[in-house]
Amino acid sequence: MLPTIARESHVVVMVDQRKLPTKEVYVRCSTAAEVARAIKTMVIRGAPAIGVAAAMGLAIGIRGSKATGTQKLAAEFYKLCELMASTRPTAVNLFWAIDRMKRSFAAGVEVGESVDQLKDRLDLEAARIHDEDVASCRALGAFGACVVPREARILTHCNAGALATAGYGTALGVIRGAVEAGKQVTVLADETRPFLQGARLTAWELLRDGIETTVITDNMAGALMRQGLIDLVVVGADRIAANGDTANKIGTYTVAVLAREHQIPFYVAAPLSTIDLRTPDGSKIPIEERSPKEVTHLAGTRLTPAGAQVRNPAFDVTPNHLIAGIITERGVFRAPYLESLKAAFELAEV
Amino acid sequence: MLPTIARESHVVVMVDQRKLPTKEVYVRCSTAAEVARAIKTMVIRGAPAIGVAAAMGLAIGIRGSKATGTQKLAAEFYKLCELMASTRPTAVNLFWAIDRMKRSFAAGVEVGESVDQLKDRLDLEAARIHDEDVASCRALGAFGACVVPREARILTHCNAGALATAGYGTALGVIRGAVEAGKQVTVLADETRPFLQGARLTAWELLRDGIETTVITDNMAGALMRQGLIDLVVVGADRIAANGDTANKIGTYTVAVLAREHQIPFYVAAPLSTIDLRTPDGSKIPIEERSPKEVTHLAGTRLTPAGAQVRNPAFDVTPNHLIAGIITERGVFRAPYLESLKAAFELAEV
Repeated sequence: MLPTIARESHVVVMVDQRKLPTKEVYVRCSTAAEVARAIKTMVIRGAPAIGVAAAMGLAIGIRGSKATGTQKLAAEFYKLCELMASTRPTAVNLFWAIDRMKRSFAAGVEVGESVDQLKDRLDLEAARIHDEDVASCRALGAFGACVVPREARILTHCNAGALATAGYGTALGVIRGAVEAGKQVTVLADETRPFLQGARLTAWELLRDGIETTVITDNMAGALMRQGLIDLVVVGADRIAANGDTANKIGTYTVAVLAREHQIPFYVAAPLSTIDLRTPDGSKIPIEERSPKEVTHLAGTRLTPAGAQVRNPAFDVTPNHLIAGIITERGVFRAPYLESLKAAFELAEV
Repeated sequence: MLPTIARESHVVVMVDQRKLPTKEVYVRCSTAAEVARAIKTMVIRGAPAIGVAAAMGLAIGIRGSKATGTQKLAAEFYKLCELMASTRPTAVNLFWAIDRMKRSFAAGVEVGESVDQLKDRLDLEAARIHDEDVASCRALGAFGACVVPREARILTHCNAGALATAGYGTALGVIRGAVEAGKQVTVLADETRPFLQGARLTAWELLRDGIETTVITDNMAGALMRQGLIDLVVVGADRIAANGDTANKIGTYTVAVLAREHQIPFYVAAPLSTIDLRTPDGSKIPIEERSPKEVTHLAGTRLTPAGAQVRNPAFDVTPNHLIAGIITERGVFRAPYLESLKAAFELAEV
């Protein structure tokens, strides 16, 4: 298992994803503010992973509180929740994890738990969120393996791998699931500018697992599809709206259009925690615009001339009609998504 | 005018396009072999520009010959032609320019010119190729301006600018032509991985001209088209087959598919020297695969993990049905291209 994020008593430890693959450096956060900063600056990224990080951040934040009464503790807790929620706007797993922590806290308060009991409860809930995420990835990987042909050249965009989750991965979970099911899989990884999650993280993960992987620049996928070199596309998601419209790393929409043009199935893999039934469609998903410097500079080298304007939307929205299926820990859901995704949650509650 | 390439007595001077925009360094080639190396290593790039460079390279190569008889000179000349032709396979302007130089040489031999007269003749032909290229770009820019709306947000890919030609540019020639015609134009420039011609060269050129330009990563164009932020696409070409299929920088095909999906007109701008009636369709255009290092490294920094495989096709082919028109110095030609492009040459011969 890759060391995406782990808890060590009062500390949250993360591998610094900005430095991979050339350096394997670990960042140790001992306050909620440090975890929030790590999310914001992309020490850790990937929708499920930042949900887990936020939960652990809240747990260690409250663990470190000096409050002696539950009312004081609650005030601190909700303030930390606000801090955590302000880090990144698009991935719904962040808000989902914060909500779960809030519900757990409120439940503890309701039954009159002590400060120490509330702290223990948050530790436990964060650990559950972590462990459930790994379990969800393994389950969706097994379901996803079913849609992978016996021999498949799979394109993926960004990194929806172990590093984007508590472990195993979503899109890469499907690839790992297919390999474990004995299928012959080779992977094409879009390098994924500007942050290069594909070139740096996906390639690193899959090489470690011995899965044959070829990195391409984002603008090559179309030509390779036209040459018949891609059989299937699987990507992760940062937020899936109730109608199936999916926000994911910038460039995902382009891949989906290309896949449709070449009649290649395009799948989204994500745990239910990424599905946001309260967002009716993709137009309502907030899209983060990140610093221009991610585009203008690379490893300290200036790429664009001084004075050039740039855009840096971190995500785009793929409309539901381009998606062959949404692979979750409860199975593979198909259009019409408005019904199937709703049913997925009802299934989960059984 | 930008200093893409110039002749100074026995030397060909080029701005080193690998170092722009951070450094404006000039490379001085005093032999044909040095010019060939400059083409191969992309000191100079862009189909029309490498045609001009090859012609100038042959001229200075023969100028430096110590041959005293025309037979010896001819042997040297044809050897240099082979060297020049071996530099890069895709852009047809290279072969077109070499052919023109060969025809001029043969014509001189036929009328019994002396060694010195043959040398003068090659100098003159290379200068003509240079000057005609600038004139063609200006003419196609004026024709192209007609297809640009009064207010237009234009996407371009790679650099088909002054730096890719002897001056003024093809796709950027159309943009310059539109600006000169008083149209309100803003430009979105795909950064164009791996060599970053858009981020480095297109942005630099257009900033110098005061044309508002925003650089985006290659994977953003789809999302911006979906948001209605792009009105027109204009790109250059490295080789246009008889049926209109167009080889251009990798990623062009993806842009064309996206443009079609969003009903945005997609134009190709190129001089007739880029149209190769002897290549029947795109499948017959040789596509150069360049060094993996262009993808794995950037400015000395390793991007991918050691051991990761990469692909690096430098070009792709856009099929004719995705092209709204081919803008040349003889006008804008439309489908069916098999007839219209043939007619373009007949027109040129009148």
